Amino acid sequence: MSLLDTITSPQDLKELSTKDLPALATEIREFLIHSVSKTGGHIAPSLGVVELTLALHYLFDSPKDKFIWDVGHQAYTHKIITGRKEQFFTLRQYNGISGFPHITESPHDALTVGHASTSISASLGMAFARDLRKETHNIVSVIGDGAMTGGLAYEGLNNLGHSNTNMIVILNDNEMSIAPNVGGMSTYLTKIITDKRYTRLKSNIWNTLDQIPASLGKKLQHLGHSIDDNLKKAFTPGKLFEDMGIKYLGPIDGHNFEELFHVLTYARDENKGPLLIHTLTKKGKGYEPAEINATKFHGIGSFDIESGEVRKESSQKTPSWSSIFGSTLLEIARKDARVLAITAAMPNGTGLETFEKELPQQLIDVGIAEQHGATFSAGLALAGQKPVFALYSSFLQRAFDQIIHDIALEKLNVVFAIDRAGLVGADGPTHHGAFDLSYLTTIPNCTILTPSSAEDLKDMLYSALYEIEGPVFIRYPRGTTPAAPPAYAPQGKKEFLPQQVKTLPGAKVLLLPVGDFLPTACAVQEKLHSAGILSDVTSLRCVKPLPHDRLYSLFSAYDTVITLENNSLINGAGAQLLQVLQQGAHRGALSHVPKLLSYGYPDRFIDQGTQEELLQELGLAPDPLTEKIIQDIRA
Amino acid sequence: MSLLDTITSPQDLKELSTKDLPALATEIREFLIHSVSKTGGHIAPSLGVVELTLALHYLFDSPKDKFIWDVGHQAYTHKIITGRKEQFFTLRQYNGISGFPHITESPHDALTVGHASTSISASLGMAFARDLRKETHNIVSVIGDGAMTGGLAYEGLNNLGHSNTNMIVILNDNEMSIAPNVGGMSTYLTKIITDKRYTRLKSNIWNTLDQIPASLGKKLQHLGHSIDDNLKKAFTPGKLFEDMGIKYLGPIDGHNFEELFHVLTYARDENKGPLLIHTLTKKGKGYEPAEINATKFHGIGSFDIESGEVRKESSQKTPSWSSIFGSTLLEIARKDARVLAITAAMPNGTGLETFEKELPQQLIDVGIAEQHGATFSAGLALAGQKPVFALYSSFLQRAFDQIIHDIALEKLNVVFAIDRAGLVGADGPTHHGAFDLSYLTTIPNCTILTPSSAEDLKDMLYSALYEIEGPVFIRYPRGTTPAAPPAYAPQGKKEFLPQQVKTLPGAKVLLLPVGDFLPTACAVQEKLHSAGILSDVTSLRCVKPLPHDRLYSLFSAYDTVITLENNSLINGAGAQLLQVLQQGAHRGALSHVPKLLSYGYPDRFIDQGTQEELLQELGLAPDPLTEKIIQDIRA
Repeated sequence: MSLLDTITSPQDLKELSTKDLPALATEIREFLIHSVSKTGGHIAPSLGVVELTLALHYLFDSPKDKFIWDVGHQAYTHKIITGRKEQFFTLRQYNGISGFPHITESPHDALTVGHASTSISASLGMAFARDLRKETHNIVSVIGDGAMTGGLAYEGLNNLGHSNTNMIVILNDNEMSIAPNVGGMSTYLTKIITDKRYTRLKSNIWNTLDQIPASLGKKLQHLGHSIDDNLKKAFTPGKLFEDMGIKYLGPIDGHNFEELFHVLTYARDENKGPLLIHTLTKKGKGYEPAEINATKFHGIGSFDIESGEVRKESSQKTPSWSSIFGSTLLEIARKDARVLAITAAMPNGTGLETFEKELPQQLIDVGIAEQHGATFSAGLALAGQKPVFALYSSFLQRAFDQIIHDIALEKLNVVFAIDRAGLVGADGPTHHGAFDLSYLTTIPNCTILTPSSAEDLKDMLYSALYEIEGPVFIRYPRGTTPAAPPAYAPQGKKEFLPQQVKTLPGAKVLLLPVGDFLPTACAVQEKLHSAGILSDVTSLRCVKPLPHDRLYSLFSAYDTVITLENNSLINGAGAQLLQVLQQGAHRGALSHVPKLLSYGYPDRFIDQGTQEELLQELGLAPDPLTEKIIQDIRA
Repeated sequence: MSLLDTITSPQDLKELSTKDLPALATEIREFLIHSVSKTGGHIAPSLGVVELTLALHYLFDSPKDKFIWDVGHQAYTHKIITGRKEQFFTLRQYNGISGFPHITESPHDALTVGHASTSISASLGMAFARDLRKETHNIVSVIGDGAMTGGLAYEGLNNLGHSNTNMIVILNDNEMSIAPNVGGMSTYLTKIITDKRYTRLKSNIWNTLDQIPASLGKKLQHLGHSIDDNLKKAFTPGKLFEDMGIKYLGPIDGHNFEELFHVLTYARDENKGPLLIHTLTKKGKGYEPAEINATKFHGIGSFDIESGEVRKESSQKTPSWSSIFGSTLLEIARKDARVLAITAAMPNGTGLETFEKELPQQLIDVGIAEQHGATFSAGLALAGQKPVFALYSSFLQRAFDQIIHDIALEKLNVVFAIDRAGLVGADGPTHHGAFDLSYLTTIPNCTILTPSSAEDLKDMLYSALYEIEGPVFIRYPRGTTPAAPPAYAPQGKKEFLPQQVKTLPGAKVLLLPVGDFLPTACAVQEKLHSAGILSDVTSLRCVKPLPHDRLYSLFSAYDTVITLENNSLINGAGAQLLQVLQQGAHRGALSHVPKLLSYGYPDRFIDQGTQEELLQELGLAPDPLTEKIIQDIRA
């Protein structure tokens, strides 16, 4: 029986000898690599914190003590230790366990996460509450140096430094976010690490400390720490944190149990007030392909353990939306030096890998800092550049105020390439791009484009940069572009008017899919035909502004108009069209008022699963959708 | 002729002798106090930077060189110097000049502002663009220590420190945001200032430097700065910034022209790379009442110069929405220690002045940090407290992702008291709360309440804390509660169902005002009556979730249903009701489908002016509204 097999809770872990921990860490790594090679997942971040997680669960007492994992993609060992080993093969799958901590999944998950930089703020709230209730449990947040780039983390640190609360922040420093890290803070951390003078002296101190017999008790240990403190003051690593009122310890080797136990025991038993522990870890530790290419293994699909190669899905025959975006932007930027790509730590995820290699001076990675990315783009636009900020839909939520206040109000020419709009699949509710049409339509002066094919996306990117005034948002989903794009005439390019795709003579039903829902609409059209219902398909490629007059005449030609969208029905494209229909009807601008039926996401958070599974569940796959439409038409 | 009368552009300023500048500063202060005492405005911030502004315009060359004023409320002197003195009496008034810089108002306004912490990011964008174009002009952002609390400022600093661009950040440190400042950063800045050892040595250095004849040229000056640099390294003020890769100079006296000229000349002529200049200023400088109470004079209505007393508007007979909120929360919190008030640097603006005095341990000021305020509240709620985060509608936009990701997804019991919902008046487009109903209805699991009276607000606050599960948003406008609140029966309290207020027998028109639009609806009802149209008034007090069945039967009883709201019509309350109506009609749940007419804000940014002027312009004051309704009913 392996050590890992004996662990079903943190209590079991505590019964092991500390000497067993390295072996257990090795078993966990094997388990993780084996398991995630099948399910896919955030393997590299989790491999980096195996020792740290074991040390925390060994020394602290979860769930009384709270562990708050920033982003949460590094929490796999935490999940295994807290009784979820048996379910681990369901990781990130439909009805399986989440790839992130989730408060409803386990009492050991103190916070639901997915987005970066939230841990310090949430932990501080818990710490304030604990203090008010005169409770004494420990609160530990674990945050990567990448997430430390986010302004929310700084706001939290700033408030923490002002407080006197007992709270431990573990800065898990692997010099990476998803991509290699950027920013002044990162440079600073590297400087600490590479300050050899200090490191040499420090290691002398730690060696001396380690020679102090435990029997001499805490006083001597305390003395040791105080020597270290004084050394630190002289050489000022961590001074930045100390200046903000947060005690700093480190850097320590996050894969060394002895160092971890030493520092964490001090943190648990002796420290008072805010404390930051700086641990150095290697992303992907213990699995060579992930150590070599931590960016690739940050979040990955299923892969071959031997070679580290990702298992290609056989269906992937057409290029992804991301790659079409990246190659088109590169093509444009080669000819126009004003065109700049902005990314928030995700050049790869957004298809800008080749762009970054070929035109590095035209790509700016601002780190995990979406607010700044937006306002920085505003500055670029004001100075006459053509910034294109590429990011995921759910992360764009972070820049909502900056879009309104810094870009839309001034009608600046900033282009947003919104990737992962709609359901993203395995990453689940924190990552679905379910709301962008709703919150963006709210904002005046914006143009919102929804390509239904690779050709559309190319055209739209070009128009956004050269034809349209004011901010333009182009949103497209995770995955591949349609295999057989509709061949429509190049009319109304700039306005991206609703585009007739396929008509059936005599149709009184109009299918009006938004962007990438076009193939679904075409499938539904056929199925409706089989059921004896004739329908036309017209692609809605621009959600704002809407061409009222054009829509009035379009609507007038049908008995039923059906909108299909990969966005919440609340305030989505269907809701916009309903307002247009209402206005047209009141003005008497319609010769005939059709019934408008809208299909999209319900008003709830949507769980994880493959895109196909989720669409099926939501009734948005062609079969259930056709059935529902027939029912609703006949109602 | 006064000195000020000779200045119509920065060019005129440069023609003065530097010896004239102190006298000019005095004239400007007199002008500002005189002018703002009539118009109202942000007098204290602007009085604090008169010397700094004159030094900048004297030494730099706007608009070629760019000045970016963070928040922008300190830019009054900048406006006067750049040709807007004659228009200054129209400050913040309808069709007048803005209280903030605005790119459309003057070529000297490099950025449109209003919200805090945007300056560094926007400036950095301009600096990148300048470098790409191989231009050489200067870019200077001026940011207060309060705005430095915002995560966006840190994201900008972090990116700036990583760059090698020439950019000057002036940290204007008055140890205040709107209220006295909080946070680790603030403590740190104070430590720099009060480090007497350094200050004494530093002043010796500066004295020596001042004795160096200018004829000895730049080399010696450079030497002086290098001595100062070395001193700084020993005593490490500004080390935090230097650690992030940003050169630090200061602290200097921001009211001393000699020090300002010295440092700014160095910054302009010799510095390479990112530079932060730390100036110390006094908020309200030169006007005693504002120096004594800078919080009161941060932003103020018209006031009596002699006494510093605000001129009371005679119409203000009922308590403000803010004060009803503050006193009710205080009453609840006295009895329940779990109830906590959270504010982002605005205890006074949100009506929490008395609360802060009486229950300081139950009020947490997180500084200008709305993201953190929301996620911190999530942590409090997870730990069983009852946080109430009070802030202005337009600032809540900053926490949009945190509401979705950290609060709504987990259905946490966080209450948001949203003040300044709707039109705010003189602060204009950056401050109107025109979108909250739109972006909040988008989010699942939320309850959105819109009180129509002081009594409603009290009930709602109580229910939000003790009866409703999940996040609750209570939104109310700037200004006073209605004088004659409708006396309705205490039914449906928890659900806050639509509440019948006044019926006229035989009415076939229903007026359905949202929250504080109730008095307008009652006025419209009377006017319609005079025009021979009978209508009923029912107050819509909860915008989400909507009671579908109750609304179906309500709608069925009328030929026309009219919604009135102080929010954008796009995705606002009217849009939500339209979706309900559509669903009811499709399901056959309505015995009779009425015509739905919605009135609210158009899909554009709305300018400044009094609330009354703006409502008149938008056709939402009772007279134009009645006229429009009659037209639309008869259409």
